[in-house]
Amino acid sequence: MPQNGSAFDRATAVTRTEGGGIRAELDPAWDVGAGVLNGGYLLGVVARAALLDSPHPHPVALSASYLRATPGGPADLTVTAGPGGRTLAHASVLLSPAGGPSLAVQVTTATLGRDGSDYSVNPVPEVPGPDECVATRTAEGGPAVGLARQIDTRLDPATAGWTVGRPSDTRLLRAWIRLADGRDPDPLALLLFADALPPTAFAVGRPGWAPTVQLQVLVRALPAPGWCLVESRSTEVTGGWSDEECRIWDSAGRLVAQARQLARVAR
Amino acid sequence: MPQNGSAFDRATAVTRTEGGGIRAELDPAWDVGAGVLNGGYLLGVVARAALLDSPHPHPVALSASYLRATPGGPADLTVTAGPGGRTLAHASVLLSPAGGPSLAVQVTTATLGRDGSDYSVNPVPEVPGPDECVATRTAEGGPAVGLARQIDTRLDPATAGWTVGRPSDTRLLRAWIRLADGRDPDPLALLLFADALPPTAFAVGRPGWAPTVQLQVLVRALPAPGWCLVESRSTEVTGGWSDEECRIWDSAGRLVAQARQLARVAR
Repeated sequence: MPQNGSAFDRATAVTRTEGGGIRAELDPAWDVGAGVLNGGYLLGVVARAALLDSPHPHPVALSASYLRATPGGPADLTVTAGPGGRTLAHASVLLSPAGGPSLAVQVTTATLGRDGSDYSVNPVPEVPGPDECVATRTAEGGPAVGLARQIDTRLDPATAGWTVGRPSDTRLLRAWIRLADGRDPDPLALLLFADALPPTAFAVGRPGWAPTVQLQVLVRALPAPGWCLVESRSTEVTGGWSDEECRIWDSAGRLVAQARQLARVAR
Repeated sequence: MPQNGSAFDRATAVTRTEGGGIRAELDPAWDVGAGVLNGGYLLGVVARAALLDSPHPHPVALSASYLRATPGGPADLTVTAGPGGRTLAHASVLLSPAGGPSLAVQVTTATLGRDGSDYSVNPVPEVPGPDECVATRTAEGGPAVGLARQIDTRLDPATAGWTVGRPSDTRLLRAWIRLADGRDPDPLALLLFADALPPTAFAVGRPGWAPTVQLQVLVRALPAPGWCLVESRSTEVTGGWSDEECRIWDSAGRLVAQARQLARVAR
């Protein structure tokens, strides 16, 4: 599929205004419930804005503060370029929908390659193939939100007990993931995938909101075509705060992204 | 020791100017070589600026882009407050020494507690006591930089082979750490400790610069008095980029901070 024909590319498009600003039409179809847009989808929009004037083609690191919930509709993007050189460039991006700034992001852009790793202790977990996994779109207890129609998510049966009323005692989710329209992954899609699984509290039978406070995503390599495998785990929950650690491997078994977020959780 | 008597508190102090700005006198004694200040020290300064007008007393999440090297001397801090509520508050902080902006940080403040964890898969590693560990201040191959005089670092012998010419094949460092003047840890000191160990490439016998590109630090709990244990590991090195994963436990064995940075490394 040509990338400009993909729903993700259309929904994350940014345009320059006559006044020299940058504008996006945030698509309400990428929500996580109650009209609130998914945080990874928003990072895709922000990265596109940062890339407009960058000398480099790929986002390699995004660190975001989620100031408030972002609704669909028109939004302004303010890009403040930092220093840029041969290796990388920095920018700060502020996303402002109608109600005022909702997302502030530090963006680093560079040129990613397909070279093999020089060092890796991120072996790909053993998970059955996508067809032997649990499609969350139709799972009991699965998310009935816009995002679930945009991405095809297949949960590792070992971490899917919660979908059939048998929660685990471990806050761990693993899933194959791809865009529902078949568009292959790229660094922008990895930003989406880094915040696309349900909160890990679902795995232990505690569904509910877990709004992201800050999220850092590192894109480590260009992903191969096909499914990506996403692993999300919480390692520490205390005082109403949870971390969510995320690793993403491509179809060739290579680590292509890492992320960590701090989220609020029900106490 | 009263905290206002500590070198760290003096070196990270910020003051309001008559014009309403915020200013710091960055202390060249906290350098990592060549007059370049340590990234964790700078986060301490930035957090103090963010706390000035915050309704909350503690930094809980900082995400920073290191735009360029920061030298000692006077620096301006620009704090842009975001939304704040009963639970947390956001701010963006820009640190500008004489040469222009060098550090852009998203800061989230809140109120941290000493409650026990609700969930944790971060058992404290088994490391001999500080007196049985390797003091890097005097170690052959150890860092002969200002920072090494400000903090007392005791490397786990299991990860200290590189200090005596016997590097490991694992990019892992563990060390007890405290401020050299005996000041007890607090959330600000944890920001320092999150970027205080040498690059993990040292462990495999490849000393050299590893400039931080982006760094996220999460402070998860108020630390108990005494030594902290810091573990730093690299999990993926590719194309001249390395991650550095950091966890910090307090003297009671509790996880009190997590961090991840993306750094440039020699190829």
